[in-house]
Amino acid sequence: MSAVRAAVLAQFEQPLEIRSYPEPGAPGPGEALARVEMAGICGTDVHLWLGQLAIPIPVVLGHETVGRMETLGPGLEKDWRGRPLQPGDRVTWASSIICGECYYCRQKAQPTRCLNRKAYGISYNADEPPHLRGGYAEKILLRAGTAIFRIPDELPTEAVVGAGCALTTAIHGIERAPVNWGDTVVIQGSGPVGLAALAVALQAGATRAIVTGGPAHRLERAREFGAHVTIDVAAAAGLAERRRQVLDATGGYGADVVIECVGHPDAVNEGLEYCRDGGRFLVLGQYADAGSISFNPHTVTRKQLQMIGSWGFEPRHVDRALGLLNETGWKHRFARQITHRFALDRADEALQTTRQWISGKTVIVP
Amino acid sequence: MSAVRAAVLAQFEQPLEIRSYPEPGAPGPGEALARVEMAGICGTDVHLWLGQLAIPIPVVLGHETVGRMETLGPGLEKDWRGRPLQPGDRVTWASSIICGECYYCRQKAQPTRCLNRKAYGISYNADEPPHLRGGYAEKILLRAGTAIFRIPDELPTEAVVGAGCALTTAIHGIERAPVNWGDTVVIQGSGPVGLAALAVALQAGATRAIVTGGPAHRLERAREFGAHVTIDVAAAAGLAERRRQVLDATGGYGADVVIECVGHPDAVNEGLEYCRDGGRFLVLGQYADAGSISFNPHTVTRKQLQMIGSWGFEPRHVDRALGLLNETGWKHRFARQITHRFALDRADEALQTTRQWISGKTVIVP
Amino acid sequence: MSAVRAAVLAQFEQPLEIRSYPEPGAPGPGEALARVEMAGICGTDVHLWLGQLAIPIPVVLGHETVGRMETLGPGLEKDWRGRPLQPGDRVTWASSIICGECYYCRQKAQPTRCLNRKAYGISYNADEPPHLRGGYAEKILLRAGTAIFRIPDELPTEAVVGAGCALTTAIHGIERAPVNWGDTVVIQGSGPVGLAALAVALQAGATRAIVTGGPAHRLERAREFGAHVTIDVAAAAGLAERRRQVLDATGGYGADVVIECVGHPDAVNEGLEYCRDGGRFLVLGQYADAGSISFNPHTVTRKQLQMIGSWGFEPRHVDRALGLLNETGWKHRFARQITHRFALDRADEALQTTRQWISGKTVIVP
Amino acid sequence: MSAVRAAVLAQFEQPLEIRSYPEPGAPGPGEALARVEMAGICGTDVHLWLGQLAIPIPVVLGHETVGRMETLGPGLEKDWRGRPLQPGDRVTWASSIICGECYYCRQKAQPTRCLNRKAYGISYNADEPPHLRGGYAEKILLRAGTAIFRIPDELPTEAVVGAGCALTTAIHGIERAPVNWGDTVVIQGSGPVGLAALAVALQAGATRAIVTGGPAHRLERAREFGAHVTIDVAAAAGLAERRRQVLDATGGYGADVVIECVGHPDAVNEGLEYCRDGGRFLVLGQYADAGSISFNPHTVTRKQLQMIGSWGFEPRHVDRALGLLNETGWKHRFARQITHRFALDRADEALQTTRQWISGKTVIVP
Repeated sequence: MSAVRAAVLAQFEQPLEIRSYPEPGAPGPGEALARVEMAGICGTDVHLWLGQLAIPIPVVLGHETVGRMETLGPGLEKDWRGRPLQPGDRVTWASSIICGECYYCRQKAQPTRCLNRKAYGISYNADEPPHLRGGYAEKILLRAGTAIFRIPDELPTEAVVGAGCALTTAIHGIERAPVNWGDTVVIQGSGPVGLAALAVALQAGATRAIVTGGPAHRLERAREFGAHVTIDVAAAAGLAERRRQVLDATGGYGADVVIECVGHPDAVNEGLEYCRDGGRFLVLGQYADAGSISFNPHTVTRKQLQMIGSWGFEPRHVDRALGLLNETGWKHRFARQITHRFALDRADEALQTTRQWISGKTVIVP
Repeated sequence: MSAVRAAVLAQFEQPLEIRSYPEPGAPGPGEALARVEMAGICGTDVHLWLGQLAIPIPVVLGHETVGRMETLGPGLEKDWRGRPLQPGDRVTWASSIICGECYYCRQKAQPTRCLNRKAYGISYNADEPPHLRGGYAEKILLRAGTAIFRIPDELPTEAVVGAGCALTTAIHGIERAPVNWGDTVVIQGSGPVGLAALAVALQAGATRAIVTGGPAHRLERAREFGAHVTIDVAAAAGLAERRRQVLDATGGYGADVVIECVGHPDAVNEGLEYCRDGGRFLVLGQYADAGSISFNPHTVTRKQLQMIGSWGFEPRHVDRALGLLNETGWKHRFARQITHRFALDRADEALQTTRQWISGKTVIVP
Repeated sequence: MSAVRAAVLAQFEQPLEIRSYPEPGAPGPGEALARVEMAGICGTDVHLWLGQLAIPIPVVLGHETVGRMETLGPGLEKDWRGRPLQPGDRVTWASSIICGECYYCRQKAQPTRCLNRKAYGISYNADEPPHLRGGYAEKILLRAGTAIFRIPDELPTEAVVGAGCALTTAIHGIERAPVNWGDTVVIQGSGPVGLAALAVALQAGATRAIVTGGPAHRLERAREFGAHVTIDVAAAAGLAERRRQVLDATGGYGADVVIECVGHPDAVNEGLEYCRDGGRFLVLGQYADAGSISFNPHTVTRKQLQMIGSWGFEPRHVDRALGLLNETGWKHRFARQITHRFALDRADEALQTTRQWISGKTVIVP
Repeated sequence: MSAVRAAVLAQFEQPLEIRSYPEPGAPGPGEALARVEMAGICGTDVHLWLGQLAIPIPVVLGHETVGRMETLGPGLEKDWRGRPLQPGDRVTWASSIICGECYYCRQKAQPTRCLNRKAYGISYNADEPPHLRGGYAEKILLRAGTAIFRIPDELPTEAVVGAGCALTTAIHGIERAPVNWGDTVVIQGSGPVGLAALAVALQAGATRAIVTGGPAHRLERAREFGAHVTIDVAAAAGLAERRRQVLDATGGYGADVVIECVGHPDAVNEGLEYCRDGGRFLVLGQYADAGSISFNPHTVTRKQLQMIGSWGFEPRHVDRALGLLNETGWKHRFARQITHRFALDRADEALQTTRQWISGKTVIVP
């Protein structure tokens, strides 16, 4: 009987291991077996590798994946949008499945806070059958209820993985803290989430976008994406100077919207400084618990701010992301994000490349 | 020539002084001279007395005032709502005047953040003519452009001053962080702002309102206002126990909306605990800079919260407040708030009564 | 083998027939068999009887129903809110089931416009097994996926059926065309939908509610519900006079929100007259296609109006309705709506009572 | 004493007359005298010429104007945005002045429905001093309180007049009926308002914009602006065929947003056909009362639509328009709109060019 290889995080801060699992049998009702074409390395994968989030191990990492449909279980005939699904179709899927029944799913319309949410590449113990629940693998077995999206032929795989979960996360965040056309926007951070937030802000019509971050090759990408001003946090001597540059670029009072895509908690106090009175501050980067800061809540009252959190995304945000990529020139910019490709055997090397901030986007091509 | 007496804060933390100022001459265009009928003591006045906010001294305190029109300047013929104004009319007014021309007034629709805002009873040096710019006085000279409201005959002065700027502040805050009918609401604080927020939340249709605060006589008032549950912060042993009680009263996950009306910065972290995921947290009480707290921004992201600030109010909120009082039974509850009355000579005693949290609402009746 | 009796609409405009169907076997996975305790007669049932909507016949009417759980199919263990469900529980349910997968369900968040929606008492041919898909019957077999709600013990059956689908319809409509606290509201129509809209508008804090309609016993109920002004359309001589009365009651310019709950298309032009410039006009009553009117779209531009439609409701509106009833005094007012009760054998008489506008609310008690 | 020439509409449907008025004296407080550099001919001017709106005559037409500051009255030192104003500055201004005090200005935040609004080029009788209140003239005397905007040096006069009041009208309308990024939008009409609505919809991130209209040279411009699909109403044989084309271009269910910029009332029923269920329909073109249509309100309920009106614009929309032009490439597209230029003497010829739909945008260069 044939086997399927996968890269497994078996111990935190230790090299990923290549393990073999039995080929899954015929998919059950609603399930699907897909062959992985490309799996993105997300910054969150680095956090998982470092043991900074509570997950089961061993785990097959990988929650940004494009695959090719191999076998469809009984009853699975259409994708999330109702388009017919067949073996051979190129697809992606929402990384999380929610229960649809809990307090947050039903009563409060906050499905990303589902009490029973599980994510591919994060929440499944690889020791337990069917084992193949992550993207760093030759194949993945998708559960019934997965929001699968057939990818239009004209949309390259590189664009989908190059955008990754950063784009869907940014779309959800900016839905909660809207950018209106004509707004000035500061984006803190020039990693994948920062660039994705930049893309969405520009698509929403921001007429001035300032990106703070680094290193230089990242800011160069931000300018390629359309940032009007970039501020290198290493070069700009201190917060006061950075603040001066932001105020200069926003007419003197700060931006209408500030989007934090850094992850370090200090960025929050800095971002509040960039925000005009009455503005919106989207706390998008604080996914991991990176600790506390000294914070003065009087600022929120006096500046009359909205500080808005956003967690994960829903299938409809994947739909919007694919629509954005397919219908605009953004697909090319995101596809160019991919700078490093590794075979599955070198998955650990791929992860380390991301960890060291060398790459644009790193992917595994099994 | 006759003189007009006023209670003046001449030195921080020192007794108010009764001073006499010359009777103002005929009001200029758009101005009005009013005889004070009742002036409320606001908690903010205590902060001002303590020197916790940057204001000029000496100052005639008093920004919650009902007066009787004495002389109207040329061109002043109608109140803010367009109703005719005449000598003898009973009136109140918005405590602040904005410029209507600055960046925040015009371009960003945030008039409460007007760069040139000045408030009666707070921003005017009493040494400078015309001196009479606060409510703790026999008369007040209202500037042209003041939003004056004629009070309907059926609405008692006690209701207007009993509600005070707490009600207009709460109306503005809840406009920014809406309470929808059927929502569960926690109100932190049972002082005037807390009670006013309770009234507005109930008027907006909250079906469960929990008030945390004290002392006991305040919570008794909260129950009279319609609070379904009150939690005495002195009696409830610690945050964990208070949180348990709040969760019990909100179905286990926390309230849809939490309104902070305390002023102590620690209340912010406590309030976030009371908020369900995806909920709204209105930071309404942090008017003075009471210092910083240790704060974890990961909470905002993970719980997908909105933390919303609100500063002051606009004339239209005074209009809504008067409408609410006039058209509903709230007028009676707010009028009953007034527990202590003092003559102008005893203004300092009035202030100390408020400072010591003895009273419901204390007023000066010159 | 035992049989279950039901009242069947077999021919339009002909008396309902009492038919017997075989007792359903054990419910399948997720299904439930319920014994009907009370079934409301809705105005829509009259339209169905008249043949004004495209439905299959024969049909067991009845989409406003309270039942008692008799047998639960495998896997059905909790109600929509996650509370345990057991035989003997008193329940109600959302009358419609949606597919959850179509363009409107998934991509456009308009589930009431689901392309595959089916409603108990409306969309099921009674000739086809399992036959029992309406409330005018001794029993009803609920499909898997039905949003079932266990009714709290303290909430009387009369309140739930007395509110009926009028309340859920009004809740959805006012969600789309919000009433803010302090608003003035005109409600056109004093039937069940009008009264329900009145209740929701008052719960949302409307400080002035005007109801136009009739006959007199209906307007008397509107006043009991809390209407500040009622206008009898038969007594008020013509639109000009009614308009004068509405403007008098709304400060001269018209209401902030007008809610049409009449159904006759002429009510739309009349309602636009009642609306202030910049106001909201909710077209809630035009469920059946009652024909066209002469309409001038210049009015919408010049008065800068929002004309808003709303169709049906979702399970979460049933949840809000039950919450409203359970947590407030509205339960008593809605329960008192029930004026006429009939045994199942007299279902046709029940329907005619509703048709002739004699009753408050008429119900069948099998 | 010198005289100032102006083109005057003295009789409806008769040629404009060139009249001379006395040079105004020194401007009063807050007033300004400007020399006209360019005045746009708006489609509304044609309606005025035809006598379809109630205005005083004789009137100096012209409400889309760029001028050069000649003399500033006492106290006028800054433009609407607070930038210093001096003689010689190139400026434009909001065409309307509102009272700021009436029911709609103050209490209902609908300043475009101000009860006392007056517009340059429309509302002022040219027989009454100071006569010069329209743009078809050598000079115009601006009233105190006019929202004047200094035009940045890099923004060509042609862009400002080429955009005209169509752009500010579209900005206001789309503020009321928002286009979200990713939306599909149908714009009915390819005149100046249609093209402006197209520009705003694209700036707001619409990913598919369909323009219906004509004649061919207009649709060519729409494609230059970025329309993805254009439908020639003359060529497309009937509504059914046009509807088929719209549905084809919007995935089969209709557009998220439909913007009516036609003016003929029949366009409203056609536009409702183009709208998906739950969509937004902006009635933007029905400025003049062009009569009634047969309309079925059941459509609004069943399709769960929002039909939204919008009237005129506020100074802040002029600010947004100038910002959009200045900060993006739209300035070039709008500047290219100007196809015909006439001297003041030939103002009537300019008007007729617009009336006959020959031109892109026609302007007068005094």
